[in-house]
Amino acid sequence: MRVPSGGRPVKEVGEFPLIDMIDGVVSATLPRRLRMGIGDDAAVWRPRPGRDLVFTTDILVQNVHFRLDWMDWQAVGHKALAVNLSDVAAMGAQPRLALVSLALTGSERDREVTDLFRGMNALGRRHGVVVAGGDLSASPNGVIVSVTVIGETSAGRRAVMTRDGARPGDIIGVTGPLGMAAAGLRVFQQQLLTLDGNPAMREAYSRPKPRVREGRLLARAGVRAAMDLSDGLLGDLPKMCQASGVSAVIDIARVPIPNAIKWNFDDWFDLALRGGEDYELLFTAPPAVFARVCRAFRLAGLHGPWRIGEIVKAGAKGPEVKIREASGKVEEVESGAYTHWG
Amino acid sequence: MRVPSGGRPVKEVGEFPLIDMIDGVVSATLPRRLRMGIGDDAAVWRPRPGRDLVFTTDILVQNVHFRLDWMDWQAVGHKALAVNLSDVAAMGAQPRLALVSLALTGSERDREVTDLFRGMNALGRRHGVVVAGGDLSASPNGVIVSVTVIGETSAGRRAVMTRDGARPGDIIGVTGPLGMAAAGLRVFQQQLLTLDGNPAMREAYSRPKPRVREGRLLARAGVRAAMDLSDGLLGDLPKMCQASGVSAVIDIARVPIPNAIKWNFDDWFDLALRGGEDYELLFTAPPAVFARVCRAFRLAGLHGPWRIGEIVKAGAKGPEVKIREASGKVEEVESGAYTHWG
Repeated sequence: MRVPSGGRPVKEVGEFPLIDMIDGVVSATLPRRLRMGIGDDAAVWRPRPGRDLVFTTDILVQNVHFRLDWMDWQAVGHKALAVNLSDVAAMGAQPRLALVSLALTGSERDREVTDLFRGMNALGRRHGVVVAGGDLSASPNGVIVSVTVIGETSAGRRAVMTRDGARPGDIIGVTGPLGMAAAGLRVFQQQLLTLDGNPAMREAYSRPKPRVREGRLLARAGVRAAMDLSDGLLGDLPKMCQASGVSAVIDIARVPIPNAIKWNFDDWFDLALRGGEDYELLFTAPPAVFARVCRAFRLAGLHGPWRIGEIVKAGAKGPEVKIREASGKVEEVESGAYTHWG
Repeated sequence: MRVPSGGRPVKEVGEFPLIDMIDGVVSATLPRRLRMGIGDDAAVWRPRPGRDLVFTTDILVQNVHFRLDWMDWQAVGHKALAVNLSDVAAMGAQPRLALVSLALTGSERDREVTDLFRGMNALGRRHGVVVAGGDLSASPNGVIVSVTVIGETSAGRRAVMTRDGARPGDIIGVTGPLGMAAAGLRVFQQQLLTLDGNPAMREAYSRPKPRVREGRLLARAGVRAAMDLSDGLLGDLPKMCQASGVSAVIDIARVPIPNAIKWNFDDWFDLALRGGEDYELLFTAPPAVFARVCRAFRLAGLHGPWRIGEIVKAGAKGPEVKIREASGKVEEVESGAYTHWG
């Protein structure tokens, strides 16, 4: 059940008036170094010398990545930008610009489209990001939102955090609780409206918080290995182990899984560790660097990080992820990434 | 009728092997200044100091922007990159990196996906552009290709060509013939297989040539106003007039419309001037600068530019585009942009 939100259908408004309306939403505060925004062939940006640039892109497809009966248009805009900011955060970079390609069926209301950009803009402003341009087109079978984010980071060998930087002896950390977004998806799918904690779960799914500030602090503290958790810990940590040629042991009792998940879902383990879409940062660091991260987070008034295990040498079977139970027993565990056509 | 091109269905191949296959296609020659390519959260690029950066993004939706019974996968890859390169060319910038978001139904063959990147890569190499990263996801109702291109240009006030730089007294130029792509679309739609010249028309529609080199020469010669022709001359020139606050007079006899179009289509005027997707550059320049452009093109061994009219002061009715007939008579003409949900 989709409630019309007022406004006129896009196909009646027309493309160019719609671009003007979007421009009105996003161009309130264009930064000085952005030399051209919406309306020309391309956006122009003048970065500072001595900076590297970071680029990332992600696409959200209606009824695959979002449903308009679960999320309002502002949340769609928020999430489309958030998943990209999360990628930039995972590199330890500062996001600056976003480009948005939006494909519409034509029966959307103009108000809905501007709401999408409002949601995007509100999140962008919180992280120093402006929507600098994009493209509008047609899509007969549902809305598509494709966002590209450009960020910058100090130039230099140790400037960005990558997936191949994990070393035996490193502590494994995460920046926040796992499983809330997957629980939110379950709440929507099964209409679990009486479930205690469901507003927080739905919020985690609809409006994930990209850990931009945390990513910057990690990089500044000297962390070299990080990625964002989009496919769940047991989907993503194996990728990092593979890229770095190491294995990992997870202390299951230390993984920050909210009790609201443990107490309400029998499959809490899979939900929290394979569910995905948490957009927390996963990182590894030697103990001294990890201690520096803890101090930096505390000084900045941030929660965490949570220490959830260690990196060890890869065994005869190659890189793998194991679980250490509360008893101390170490068990093998099946890696599981969410795959799109699985 | 879609002929399978060999290979395995994407949903059987799986996401990560497919990413590796794409990496194999695009990462043959990563440039030194690209610090990270496919496989991490984001691409990292170190531009030169004293350079501005240019960003553009466009999305192609199956059965809206391309049909797989008309175009092969390599052509889809070519066109998805070409329309973005054309936007960067219209700014006078040098394209450098491309990010690709690809959404697939899952029934595509792996070979088809790598063909798409092969087509993209072949065009990119010709223009000094590498595919530096992207995103794969699911789309139940057809393929979506979203491409973002990043380019660079000399920093400085006069570095980029914009839509608002046209001045009365400027000569209006285009970099190549108009109407071939629209004729190609007509050939596909109406199966005009006996039409003389149809391979060139189909090629113009399927594999447009972005005018990157021409754009660089225009900017270097001092041209300040340019845009690429994606919506036809009578769709795009009014946008430039509006942005610049001027009017334009087009000498219809001087517009480079191939005889293959005039002789075969009764509606050749609308086909050539409103049909769109030519991706030639439209620019305006004072006579001395225009002469410099002609010399630069000749020295570079390029055709054109074609001189098709002049910019004049806007009249009482505001910015408008008029047509000067072969007789010398100046007529009003309806502006007409292709709109997506029209």
